[in-house]
Amino acid sequence: MTTEKIDNISVTTQANVYFDGKCVSHGITFADGTKKSVGVVLPSTLTFNTGAPEIMECVAGACEYKLAGSDAWVRSSPGEKFSVPGNSSFDIRVGEAYHYICHFG
Amino acid sequence: MTTEKIDNISVTTQANVYFDGKCVSHGITFADGTKKSVGVVLPSTLTFNTGAPEIMECVAGACEYKLAGSDAWVRSSPGEKFSVPGNSSFDIRVGEAYHYICHFG
Repeated sequence: MTTEKIDNISVTTQANVYFDGKCVSHGITFADGTKKSVGVVLPSTLTFNTGAPEIMECVAGACEYKLAGSDAWVRSSPGEKFSVPGNSSFDIRVGEAYHYICHFG
Repeated sequence: MTTEKIDNISVTTQANVYFDGKCVSHGITFADGTKKSVGVVLPSTLTFNTGAPEIMECVAGACEYKLAGSDAWVRSSPGEKFSVPGNSSFDIRVGEAYHYICHFG
């Protein structure tokens, strides 16, 4: 099931722009203080570093990702999630666009 | 005064991607049903067409804009707004990034 919208949140109006705009996200905050972000990765192959652990949830489009230490590219489609350890990294390649929710912690 | 965050809204998780990613926005909906969007225009010169009238509010970065029928480029900086009539257009040129809230109607 795809998460099409998220209710009862605050949004930070200034976007986060990474890799010259190949990734753009907006931070959101829940009433309990939990922070997540909603974003999109445009066609590219990128490497993201994590601080906190992350769960990437696909809401539209698709990507392939490869976790640090793995040789396997794995596809992620709407409704699917993948987990990335903290202080690690993952490669992502996107053909059209990958729309996501990033859950931290 | 700059609007840094917007409270008590729903966000549409799928981004709107325009002009090959030169403009990316996320739609937000207020409890009363009012819709706006938060977005960013990356370095480029673009022409946007309006359906409904729009008020563009700068929250970070800056742009210059030129309304249809005008010859004047006008700068818009954080905290400043400009209005665009419905069924019209405006040119926008951005040197670094222009972060905005788009108010409709």
